[in-house]
Amino acid sequence: MSDLDLTAGSGFGLDNLPYGVFSPPGGAPRVGTRVGGTVVDLSVLLGDEFGEGVFAADSLNPFMATGHHRWVEVRGTLRDLLAGGEVPDSAAHPLERVRMHLPFEVADYVDFYASEHHASNLGRLFRPDNPEPLLPNWKHLPVGYHGRAGSVVVSGTDVVRPSGQRKGPDDPGPVFGPSVRLDIEAELGFVVGSGSPLGTPVEVAAAEQHLFGAVVLNDWSARDIQAWEYVPLGPHLGKSFASTISAWVVPMLALGAAKVDLPRQDPPVLDYLHLARPWGLDVDMAVEWNGQVVSRPPYREMYWSPAQMLAHMTVNGAPCRTGDLLGSGTVSGPDRHQRGAFIELTWGGKEPVMVAGEPRTFLLDGDTVTISASAPGPGTERISFGEATGRVVASGPRRAG
Amino acid sequence: MSDLDLTAGSGFGLDNLPYGVFSPPGGAPRVGTRVGGTVVDLSVLLGDEFGEGVFAADSLNPFMATGHHRWVEVRGTLRDLLAGGEVPDSAAHPLERVRMHLPFEVADYVDFYASEHHASNLGRLFRPDNPEPLLPNWKHLPVGYHGRAGSVVVSGTDVVRPSGQRKGPDDPGPVFGPSVRLDIEAELGFVVGSGSPLGTPVEVAAAEQHLFGAVVLNDWSARDIQAWEYVPLGPHLGKSFASTISAWVVPMLALGAAKVDLPRQDPPVLDYLHLARPWGLDVDMAVEWNGQVVSRPPYREMYWSPAQMLAHMTVNGAPCRTGDLLGSGTVSGPDRHQRGAFIELTWGGKEPVMVAGEPRTFLLDGDTVTISASAPGPGTERISFGEATGRVVASGPRRAG
Repeated sequence: MSDLDLTAGSGFGLDNLPYGVFSPPGGAPRVGTRVGGTVVDLSVLLGDEFGEGVFAADSLNPFMATGHHRWVEVRGTLRDLLAGGEVPDSAAHPLERVRMHLPFEVADYVDFYASEHHASNLGRLFRPDNPEPLLPNWKHLPVGYHGRAGSVVVSGTDVVRPSGQRKGPDDPGPVFGPSVRLDIEAELGFVVGSGSPLGTPVEVAAAEQHLFGAVVLNDWSARDIQAWEYVPLGPHLGKSFASTISAWVVPMLALGAAKVDLPRQDPPVLDYLHLARPWGLDVDMAVEWNGQVVSRPPYREMYWSPAQMLAHMTVNGAPCRTGDLLGSGTVSGPDRHQRGAFIELTWGGKEPVMVAGEPRTFLLDGDTVTISASAPGPGTERISFGEATGRVVASGPRRAG
Repeated sequence: MSDLDLTAGSGFGLDNLPYGVFSPPGGAPRVGTRVGGTVVDLSVLLGDEFGEGVFAADSLNPFMATGHHRWVEVRGTLRDLLAGGEVPDSAAHPLERVRMHLPFEVADYVDFYASEHHASNLGRLFRPDNPEPLLPNWKHLPVGYHGRAGSVVVSGTDVVRPSGQRKGPDDPGPVFGPSVRLDIEAELGFVVGSGSPLGTPVEVAAAEQHLFGAVVLNDWSARDIQAWEYVPLGPHLGKSFASTISAWVVPMLALGAAKVDLPRQDPPVLDYLHLARPWGLDVDMAVEWNGQVVSRPPYREMYWSPAQMLAHMTVNGAPCRTGDLLGSGTVSGPDRHQRGAFIELTWGGKEPVMVAGEPRTFLLDGDTVTISASAPGPGTERISFGEATGRVVASGPRRAG
């Protein structure tokens, strides 16, 4: 048997038990959980007990599709099996010896815009003459749009600086080249486990039956490409080159103690968005730029909840599917050091932040950004989301034939 | 052996040979082609000759992923095998006896906005005070945005009227209810067969290596929901409730004789969008409202080509995948009877069209819309795309638990 490290402080104790997909040395991808610095192979520990092949799979989708009752059952079984602090040797791998993969196959990816502080900051930056920083619809519905599911990558994947068209307000026409305003967006992402059929909205009270878990998300953004392209149909190439998620999916079942009331929603929301229970999440986030923390966005400040996002996304009868990813949008708090995007943190590039003694605004080639998050658990142990990290590499001359 | 109907006029002769997925009575889905009124089972006719299980599959994705050389080879083999006008009985099914399925699994769905006439008409309708109907970026890049892949349905699927928020300019706040401005958008869709990796743009000259085929697409649109939600991140719930595609995918290899020059692109496009060969498509479309043709949109009028859409979509390094669907955006010609959306055809609802003796603007429950298309072939026979049809049904009280 192999010992598990159940001492306090790792963020990966028995109250967390996130799910991910990993390959052991020389082995095929399979589903695991993490306890301390150990990855536990669920295809070995649980075998086919909860459905044939659900853990001997290269994504969490088969397990997520089994539904809420099964998620509860597996989590209970896991806690019982791991409580003794040891697992069979064949099921235990040191974290540093395995390779982590994208944890689930992304079906549709919808990115929301749920932080009032972020939306207000962008309003002030982009519409300085307008006394009202929020647009008229913002407090009535969780504004969102579809992103590119095929560009979602796992933490650790390099991000190639995107090229594209940009045009300054005084330029005679657009020019083509690598983005010069490459930014991040620190978000949480919520993944749908159990879908809903076409024509059948998910009620806001039923969201917890459908939402499987949460990840840290960096929705990398090329602000210059976005500014030129986005009117009238929204962001496209300014966002679609890469979106990084953490390798471990924290179950919503692990976040019960993190539930808090949302900030007050005023004006009152329409009935289909009305929450009967707290659905805010007391998650602390941190953004590191080349190893230095430059921002600590507080998720508890978010105006719209994931349950409302899901209810809104399906209220027109759109189906949701196993693997649908709902991004929260940039998480920003009221204070400057709580802003989750560099365009806000540096106020459009006009107020640089100091990183390793240098004044910095947008990302340079070679920069690494790491976003992490943690939440209170039911006891004294916090629950870690791990991290979403990526390094910016130069645009290359590569072309597909 | 069963005889094939190779007499002229069906639109499904040997110059077409589209691909679809069908179930024979009591059988599982598999890949077929259509000749006249006969569906030919390729899992029987070709077996595993071109790869194990590529035709005994419930989507075209495995076959599409085999790549351009294989597409050419299979098409040549099919033409040889079918030229004699008969197939084994076990491979032949009357069209009316089979059930057609969604022909491919949609990966990402990007909808463009490639008709100058459509974009100009909407500019005049929505920004009447602006002397320039097109926005500044429109002639420099094919504007597009991501739609909902999970809402793409096969022709014949009922469309549930979407509910959502809407707010008139003088209303004090939004109200919730079924859309009262339900519209269509007559488009063609282009499906990616062979993908490209992250960080590696597809050159415009290589588009034909990647684009497998074309379908008719109806991008149903709720104009009232769209108008309230779409600033600043673009359309979401106004479009995501259903997008209907035709059951037969016409191979790009069948459209060689339909290639024509695009309308002149002025100002000249940036290098990465420059076409060395004609990429316009001489496709005639027709929109039937309850059986009456109300519009004949001419695809040859489109300003941007599918090759340019694909090159633009990937120029930032976004990967494309087998099953990616690129919608053209509404196809409209210069004349009123060539407009591919009812909002244009009825000029925002102010100029009704007569349908079965009644003045009509937007869709009522029970209405059926059928969009069809055809193109010239290499000989005298035209190439039919079949149709994308759907019937509007009332919003129901259904809720997912």
